[in-house]
Amino acid sequence: MNPFFNTIEQPVLMLDEDQAKQNIRFMVDKALKADVQFRPHFKTHQSAIIGSWFFDMGVRKITVSSVDMAEYFADNGWTEITIAFSVNPRQVARLKRLAERVQLSLLVESVDGVRALDGIAPAQAEVWIKIDVGAHRTGMDWTGIDAVRDVCGEIRNRNHLKLAGLLTHSGHTYAAHSKQEIIALFREGVERLISLKSRLAVLGYSDLRISVGDTPGCTLCDDFQGVDEIRPGNFIFYDVHQFLLGVCTFDQIAVAAACPVVALHPERDEVVIYGGAIHLSKDLNIVGGIFNYGLISLPGSKRWGEQVEGAFVSSLSQEHGIVHYPHSAMDAHPLKVGDIVFVLPAHSCLTVQALGEYHTLDGIRIPTMLKQ
Amino acid sequence: MNPFFNTIEQPVLMLDEDQAKQNIRFMVDKALKADVQFRPHFKTHQSAIIGSWFFDMGVRKITVSSVDMAEYFADNGWTEITIAFSVNPRQVARLKRLAERVQLSLLVESVDGVRALDGIAPAQAEVWIKIDVGAHRTGMDWTGIDAVRDVCGEIRNRNHLKLAGLLTHSGHTYAAHSKQEIIALFREGVERLISLKSRLAVLGYSDLRISVGDTPGCTLCDDFQGVDEIRPGNFIFYDVHQFLLGVCTFDQIAVAAACPVVALHPERDEVVIYGGAIHLSKDLNIVGGIFNYGLISLPGSKRWGEQVEGAFVSSLSQEHGIVHYPHSAMDAHPLKVGDIVFVLPAHSCLTVQALGEYHTLDGIRIPTMLKQ
Repeated sequence: MNPFFNTIEQPVLMLDEDQAKQNIRFMVDKALKADVQFRPHFKTHQSAIIGSWFFDMGVRKITVSSVDMAEYFADNGWTEITIAFSVNPRQVARLKRLAERVQLSLLVESVDGVRALDGIAPAQAEVWIKIDVGAHRTGMDWTGIDAVRDVCGEIRNRNHLKLAGLLTHSGHTYAAHSKQEIIALFREGVERLISLKSRLAVLGYSDLRISVGDTPGCTLCDDFQGVDEIRPGNFIFYDVHQFLLGVCTFDQIAVAAACPVVALHPERDEVVIYGGAIHLSKDLNIVGGIFNYGLISLPGSKRWGEQVEGAFVSSLSQEHGIVHYPHSAMDAHPLKVGDIVFVLPAHSCLTVQALGEYHTLDGIRIPTMLKQ
Repeated sequence: MNPFFNTIEQPVLMLDEDQAKQNIRFMVDKALKADVQFRPHFKTHQSAIIGSWFFDMGVRKITVSSVDMAEYFADNGWTEITIAFSVNPRQVARLKRLAERVQLSLLVESVDGVRALDGIAPAQAEVWIKIDVGAHRTGMDWTGIDAVRDVCGEIRNRNHLKLAGLLTHSGHTYAAHSKQEIIALFREGVERLISLKSRLAVLGYSDLRISVGDTPGCTLCDDFQGVDEIRPGNFIFYDVHQFLLGVCTFDQIAVAAACPVVALHPERDEVVIYGGAIHLSKDLNIVGGIFNYGLISLPGSKRWGEQVEGAFVSSLSQEHGIVHYPHSAMDAHPLKVGDIVFVLPAHSCLTVQALGEYHTLDGIRIPTMLKQ
């Protein structure tokens, strides 16, 4: 067994660096082949060191989800940053300082959003219009041509702003039930942006670019016709949600929380681990009608091993996790108090957020902006 | 409007210090009146400053949920600490160092757990046996007299360990549907511990104490017959879950996340806020079959105001929250981009964990062990 595993005292997020680099390489190559700009979302890893792995593969433009994160990556040398979160008027002073030192790209979804950016002048920024192509989280309705045209007009009226194009996050691919559905939703989103772009061109707003972002779509699709930029993030680690969607294999999941076993309850097929909501997050998946907060693996010689069939995290309190661990699993892979199990996270972005740092399989600590 | 609210740029956890102190006072007085030891759980607030409010009201013994938290409060002057988490054999070296400097109380739920504590000798600790009275999270079955007797024997065999008694967390009161059910479950748990205690006395293990811990039960019950110690934690802030259970009023909730509005979607009765899973946690409540991640209030002259009827957080992604905000609410309380809304958290412990610091209504920052 990997000797580092013996040193683990409490929940630790293990990172398989080789696998993460393979995952990055896959998407870098895919973007090159499809001739689209690759602007990966760094909210998944939140780490300057991991960011450098992207840099080493030629990435120069990145996406982040907050002003804090933009400042962190700017401090770490990144100069072309999209904040993929609609402008929050209360943070305009900080946006101005950022725009003075990096090539900043921002999102708006209303005329008021554009007007709020008067506060960054004379600093310059590129502005994308956030479009809702069906996820209904936020963004302007893709059929609302008049409203989008008005926002285009407001942007063009300002010398310090540059109209970049139309941007979406097809978050509804995460709720798909099959690869075919993901691919269909991805293309549907792109076609809707293309349709909107054509209608805006007729109105005098030509040369708009199209930016799309979800990991399921970007992983599974090969048809990027009409797309100028992709912004996936989760693909660097993937997670159980992506695995269950059919987006990745179990082996491609590059992070797992190592958690000590603290109690055994074979009479109800349960194992209690030190690893709760504050370590894993309370995000969950549903498989066959059963909620789970992650799947289970056991220590191997170098990394974690295969999936333990039938085992999953069934509930979480603040510090405890309850693992459903059936007799069949216990027969094949006996556990005792003090052993380490690996929880493959339901949603890796939120598990990274909760644990705030990584350890590689060699035991090297990798900080994030959360725990520097 | 409170002028501090105008300075808020991004999600901030607001703390109503007066209300929190009233909530502490209520439980201090209740324990005094019932003549039970009050050993509040500090996992809810995780703050040395807030801990001092308890100290000022005479509290000297505390409960925590991790070794990290025990070290933090020991560093801040607390000398009688129960770690209410079954002993993790991988942390015994740290438990030893703690036992050398504070009066440490620990939990075990197996003979192996007791044996692991040989590693702390010659340092002394008091040991509670964790009993499952029906929550089925973890602990020894309250009907398993032989197994519990064996653990008692192992503890008594060791000079450095002192058998304290029987401890439970009746977490299943959180799943109750009425005050009557909470009170009944609380008393049922106590009666089961009393029954177990009587049978152990016959076997030679007399003078065992009884420690119980949940906020719903400790808030609503007045009958503490047979109880020696109570360990509630959440009551200092309460939250929407407790409110919906009928455990507290809306006004007694002492924390709320202040979140900027970033987009309006009146066509679907939604408001988008800057405030997502990384700020609020993904813990949720169900009311009338509808999931919610928190209820909504608006800024008042000093604190947040009344509950906005019909409004709730309906979904969360990493940074965004979607607030269901019906037309009736918008008519009564119009919102625009840039306004602040308050999210009363579904589960305050996890929202504190996510945001990691407080601001009082006077704008004073209160750190926690998470963000010092």
